[in-house]
Amino acid sequence: MSDAVVVGLDVGGTSTRAVALTLSGERLGTGRAGGGNPTSHGVERAAAELLTALRGAVRGFDPARVRAGAVGLAGAGRLRADPAGRAAFDRAWSDAGLRCPYTVHSDALVGYASGTAAPDGTILIAGTGAIAAQVRDLRLDRIADGHGWLLGDAGSGFWLGREAVRALLADLDTGTAPGPLGRRLLAELLGTTEVAARPRDTVDAVVQAVTRQPPVHLARFAPPVVDEAVAGDPGAAELLHRAAAHLVTSAGRIRADGATTPLVLGGGLLTGDTPLGAAVKAEAGRRWPDAPVHSAGDGAAAAAWLAARTLPEVTDPAARHALLVPSAD
Amino acid sequence: MSDAVVVGLDVGGTSTRAVALTLSGERLGTGRAGGGNPTSHGVERAAAELLTALRGAVRGFDPARVRAGAVGLAGAGRLRADPAGRAAFDRAWSDAGLRCPYTVHSDALVGYASGTAAPDGTILIAGTGAIAAQVRDLRLDRIADGHGWLLGDAGSGFWLGREAVRALLADLDTGTAPGPLGRRLLAELLGTTEVAARPRDTVDAVVQAVTRQPPVHLARFAPPVVDEAVAGDPGAAELLHRAAAHLVTSAGRIRADGATTPLVLGGGLLTGDTPLGAAVKAEAGRRWPDAPVHSAGDGAAAAAWLAARTLPEVTDPAARHALLVPSAD
Repeated sequence: MSDAVVVGLDVGGTSTRAVALTLSGERLGTGRAGGGNPTSHGVERAAAELLTALRGAVRGFDPARVRAGAVGLAGAGRLRADPAGRAAFDRAWSDAGLRCPYTVHSDALVGYASGTAAPDGTILIAGTGAIAAQVRDLRLDRIADGHGWLLGDAGSGFWLGREAVRALLADLDTGTAPGPLGRRLLAELLGTTEVAARPRDTVDAVVQAVTRQPPVHLARFAPPVVDEAVAGDPGAAELLHRAAAHLVTSAGRIRADGATTPLVLGGGLLTGDTPLGAAVKAEAGRRWPDAPVHSAGDGAAAAAWLAARTLPEVTDPAARHALLVPSAD
Repeated sequence: MSDAVVVGLDVGGTSTRAVALTLSGERLGTGRAGGGNPTSHGVERAAAELLTALRGAVRGFDPARVRAGAVGLAGAGRLRADPAGRAAFDRAWSDAGLRCPYTVHSDALVGYASGTAAPDGTILIAGTGAIAAQVRDLRLDRIADGHGWLLGDAGSGFWLGREAVRALLADLDTGTAPGPLGRRLLAELLGTTEVAARPRDTVDAVVQAVTRQPPVHLARFAPPVVDEAVAGDPGAAELLHRAAAHLVTSAGRIRADGATTPLVLGGGLLTGDTPLGAAVKAEAGRRWPDAPVHSAGDGAAAAAWLAARTLPEVTDPAARHALLVPSAD
């Protein structure tokens, strides 16, 4: 059993996670900290969260034993192009007592590697936003969507929330009684499920309640859509199917017809045993019937594996993936 | 020939127009002023523009001769519910020397009346936004869409512009060379039609250029969509057809299947001999084959006709409509 230690970090918008693993997969330590997306929180804040999480992961052993590290984060490209940001990350790294080099990867690549060891494949992510990326030789290649809520993110949490409100407004316009999902939105937005005697007054109130908030807050209605679809609301189920179709269309913009490489599903709406994940699997199964579909899993462990691959003693990366990265399927 | 004079005003977001007409259709005067939408410009400003336009219309005769007046404006309901706003309008009315009563109507009703004298029918408007309204006995009844750019306005100028940019981004994602419309958008947004060596850089630049502006500015790309559709770009033509389908769907939310009452098309994208108007006419002709479709015309004259209808000597409003409101078909 090798004595070498690798460290991986998954820097997300709401939390930062770090793990220290031996090459045989022994978990020497883990750390957690707050969100550290350098684009939204600033590089100094991201580096501070990185340091907190790192210190947690190496607390139980001599950090000089760490031979390689990797960090996954949204906005990795911007960080690599920003010398001051990179210096802040370097400082956090050495302040935690690490002496080895580390690499910075996009969260999409780390998400991909959390689901498979295959060097080529596709990652499809749906959370508040939505993006698909082709991976070639464990690097991001072409990208589809990720265009933001105004122009894209088709099939994302924002999209689901917006379409749920639009379906409610269409019901109010036609004079159809809102279904379970529509009533939930009315309760959430207006504090009542009653439609006004003049339904246009309810329409105006819904539009005003939504537009008082930042548009991206529409993503808060994605969980109700998922819940009500599971509970049997046909309108909600239809929204999930349309979202799945959009997501698979985005992946199809960069993924060849008939591809047999893995498709990894990531993001809060697709990871694990989620209804939207199931709908995407069904839709993807029709389009790429011979491709394995995996769920994204432990991003910090996947980053640690990406670090381990750089070590000379790691000659069979796929076998090492099985040891280091727990399957989420 | 009756000596009675009526006055009509069409208060729009960019201009205010007034006309003074005898009941036989003689045009005694017209006036113009700046935009006076009370919702966006404030009531005092709207009333000031109203006064300017009114003074122009009654310049050539004794304004005490005016027997009835009507004002069409967006946000008529809000004005009616606002005593201070109504007082400001009353003041403008009497400052112009008018002694008769006047009524305030929504721009949608006045748009409808500019296309037909039929008391029942449907008005469908597409400009920057989109709205459909059912008219019953020359009052607005049910309304569809008009939900604003974030949640609705399907098939509007905003919608066309956003979908045009989305189509460009999809081309860039798939690696398809942009067509004529896409190249026009690239030139407009980035000052070049060249796609970067890494197409994702062009995608990011397009998204940033759009999101630097208020979302509703996407409506500025509607005229290029129309132009390029006419010039033969199949992608642009497809967008016009999808917009027409959305607009007819909105109208269908409030208009019965098989309705034979008139459908009036208004707003900059539908009024007159426009390509989107033609696409909507074709789509509406399939859904309501026995219904006449008219173009909205002179809103100020239509408002004057709505005023004339209140006079006891006007016993045949439809005949009077033919005299007072020029057809735009």
